[in-house]
Amino acid sequence: MIKTSCFEDYEIASSRQSFGRSIIEADIVLHAGQTGDFFPRHMDAEWVKTQEFKQRIAHGTLILCVAIGMTANEINPVAFAYGYDRVRFIRPAHIGDTITVTATISDKRDDPKRPDHGFVIEQVEARNQHGKIALACQHLYLLQRREVA
Amino acid sequence: MIKTSCFEDYEIASSRQSFGRSIIEADIVLHAGQTGDFFPRHMDAEWVKTQEFKQRIAHGTLILCVAIGMTANEINPVAFAYGYDRVRFIRPAHIGDTITVTATISDKRDDPKRPDHGFVIEQVEARNQHGKIALACQHLYLLQRREVA
Amino acid sequence: MIKTSCFEDYEIASSRQSFGRSIIEADIVLHAGQTGDFFPRHMDAEWVKTQEFKQRIAHGTLILCVAIGMTANEINPVAFAYGYDRVRFIRPAHIGDTITVTATISDKRDDPKRPDHGFVIEQVEARNQHGKIALACQHLYLLQRREVA
Amino acid sequence: MIKTSCFEDYEIASSRQSFGRSIIEADIVLHAGQTGDFFPRHMDAEWVKTQEFKQRIAHGTLILCVAIGMTANEINPVAFAYGYDRVRFIRPAHIGDTITVTATISDKRDDPKRPDHGFVIEQVEARNQHGKIALACQHLYLLQRREVA
Amino acid sequence: MIKTSCFEDYEIASSRQSFGRSIIEADIVLHAGQTGDFFPRHMDAEWVKTQEFKQRIAHGTLILCVAIGMTANEINPVAFAYGYDRVRFIRPAHIGDTITVTATISDKRDDPKRPDHGFVIEQVEARNQHGKIALACQHLYLLQRREVA
Amino acid sequence: MIKTSCFEDYEIASSRQSFGRSIIEADIVLHAGQTGDFFPRHMDAEWVKTQEFKQRIAHGTLILCVAIGMTANEINPVAFAYGYDRVRFIRPAHIGDTITVTATISDKRDDPKRPDHGFVIEQVEARNQHGKIALACQHLYLLQRREVA
Repeated sequence: MIKTSCFEDYEIASSRQSFGRSIIEADIVLHAGQTGDFFPRHMDAEWVKTQEFKQRIAHGTLILCVAIGMTANEINPVAFAYGYDRVRFIRPAHIGDTITVTATISDKRDDPKRPDHGFVIEQVEARNQHGKIALACQHLYLLQRREVA
Repeated sequence: MIKTSCFEDYEIASSRQSFGRSIIEADIVLHAGQTGDFFPRHMDAEWVKTQEFKQRIAHGTLILCVAIGMTANEINPVAFAYGYDRVRFIRPAHIGDTITVTATISDKRDDPKRPDHGFVIEQVEARNQHGKIALACQHLYLLQRREVA
Repeated sequence: MIKTSCFEDYEIASSRQSFGRSIIEADIVLHAGQTGDFFPRHMDAEWVKTQEFKQRIAHGTLILCVAIGMTANEINPVAFAYGYDRVRFIRPAHIGDTITVTATISDKRDDPKRPDHGFVIEQVEARNQHGKIALACQHLYLLQRREVA
Repeated sequence: MIKTSCFEDYEIASSRQSFGRSIIEADIVLHAGQTGDFFPRHMDAEWVKTQEFKQRIAHGTLILCVAIGMTANEINPVAFAYGYDRVRFIRPAHIGDTITVTATISDKRDDPKRPDHGFVIEQVEARNQHGKIALACQHLYLLQRREVA
Repeated sequence: MIKTSCFEDYEIASSRQSFGRSIIEADIVLHAGQTGDFFPRHMDAEWVKTQEFKQRIAHGTLILCVAIGMTANEINPVAFAYGYDRVRFIRPAHIGDTITVTATISDKRDDPKRPDHGFVIEQVEARNQHGKIALACQHLYLLQRREVA
Repeated sequence: MIKTSCFEDYEIASSRQSFGRSIIEADIVLHAGQTGDFFPRHMDAEWVKTQEFKQRIAHGTLILCVAIGMTANEINPVAFAYGYDRVRFIRPAHIGDTITVTATISDKRDDPKRPDHGFVIEQVEARNQHGKIALACQHLYLLQRREVA
């Protein structure tokens, strides 16, 4: 859905919640194929039995992509993806884990270079089916201010 | 290749360079499919003609995944992916752009919680075929120190 | 988004419009791979030059899947996909065509077997970038009536 | 195989049978990716445990595509795909179900607009490994009559 | 189609011809993803401009897989894939090339270890749209002899 | 990594070993999609229960592609892929099998047509997690001799 929301419209602490998505074996293998990262911790079901987690783990970038994608359900023509801060892989995600994502507006900042814009920071947390955080990051959006929208 | 490199082995300013990889139309459509982000700026070749860049742009997460994957060519059993800082989408990547990645050790830090480990920070820059930076980020690794490796 | 809408909530002639999506060469090749239909009209860029349309055409089922998928942006827990009627491939879709979809409630019917449900029929039309209809069909939903929802 | 069969060559009640194909988890996730339909009934292995069927179900369009694809093993240069009638999702298909398809010529009709063509209707039924019908539809072909082929 | 053909049924010099299939950019990128071979001759549209062929080339294994797949249109329950001999990459295949395959029974041999079986050798040649051979190989089948089938 | 190695640099009996890669169900289904080979021994989990191996088997070409890809980790600008000899499918690979590859220089030969080049033959063996050989082949490279490199 398209919804025009300006810098002033975002309220700190407002929050949204995604549906769940189960990470399947093929997600990992296809992500290896898209990125070229075929490291055995993702691809070798035998070798991982000798390691700490005993099972294959999803690429960090896979969980990041999926988590960010799960929050991409509203098109705001005056918002621009600026980047991410403090992306942290807190707990591995394994095959069969189901991820849900919470996104909460955690901060707003002026943009010293662009007085007619401002930054909105959304804290993104991807949790597994046990409610444990697998990944956290801050998603930075550059937003037009109302007077210029 | 497996190569055990401890915290002490990383030297600030040492650098490595990837090959190139051309971003194709299907990379974007498949990334939409993996993430669920089908926004028209990625998917609608007609609508984008009315927009600033006149053509479809790759998802930021696609360029991040590909850039990180292009640096994943050495397995270090005593290195752990910790996260990313300051991921910035500096310039859009379009269909047909060819990305090369430079990764430079930019910093090393103690880990206050784990005295036998330390952080190594690698500055990752993905450039297009014109030498312009499309994406930059800091890749944080947690490394064992030699005495414990 | 989740939104509970009962049989009574659907109004004949109400309509919704999708974004656009460009059909790429890889969509056709991947659909061939998912279905096993590698017929030369989809796969052979040389042979099609000898045929009426001079270029490869998308599988009818690809356009149907994409069109239906483009309307799947609202989860209604009391609606059930029942089927499609009168699916018609009116005009071929070629590589590079951009599809947009209009979905209009065209009819409502009682369900003789389930008095607490009713059928809502949505007329789905997929148009190309020239505004010409490529595919039309009726999407049948079985909806709970309010008194039972 | 190429085989030219005209309208007159199709006999009502003649039938053909496909091999089997097992629907895997990745078929569903890739179909979500091709269509953009990531609804939790297809993607969330946890949530579906709370629902009637207790497990993820394949998209209706996936089963339709696969079933139609399984019958696409003969190229008839004088046959044209016209559309589908009465597509019905009779029973859900789950991960691991194996689908086989029976296609039976069920009707032939004149085409009032094209006296040198006629419609052949093939009743397509996709059954699971228990012999239960998952999907049924009528596949309409427009066929040249012999005198014009 | 299932067709039981025994060792005795194969005639030297009998031949079959496939349809055409155009090799697309995504075939190469997806094959890189399935195999992990992201070498710049397949993936880097800029670097290849400096090389002999000026454009990206398909992986040899991609053309082999596609060519063998294009001959896999008949299931013979008494034939077993034994291997390939003399696989030769004679000419590179580029994006947009259209491959057709000719398969000719070129030899039959006894199997010294299995007197009730014999080898049938099929010469497979994949040609591009200019009629030039891109790949040739011998496909070895182990066939039951009639008396034992 | 790029490493220029001439004909003279290859030593008979020198060997290298890959990591492991687990073959997943989706590898087989995607390989069916890339090649068009949907034979029931790869795709039908029910029918294979009636057959010798009781479970689906990977396409021979899939294991060949993966095995060759697993050895493609060094770019040698003076080496050219020439072909394969004696590709043999010795044991089927099943879903969940983990493949590792050993590649050993087994022979070197002059090239009568190109006195400034020579052939290096690498014996490739793909073993499953039980150490049993699934596939063996000879990979032929055409190498520049030092005096011309």
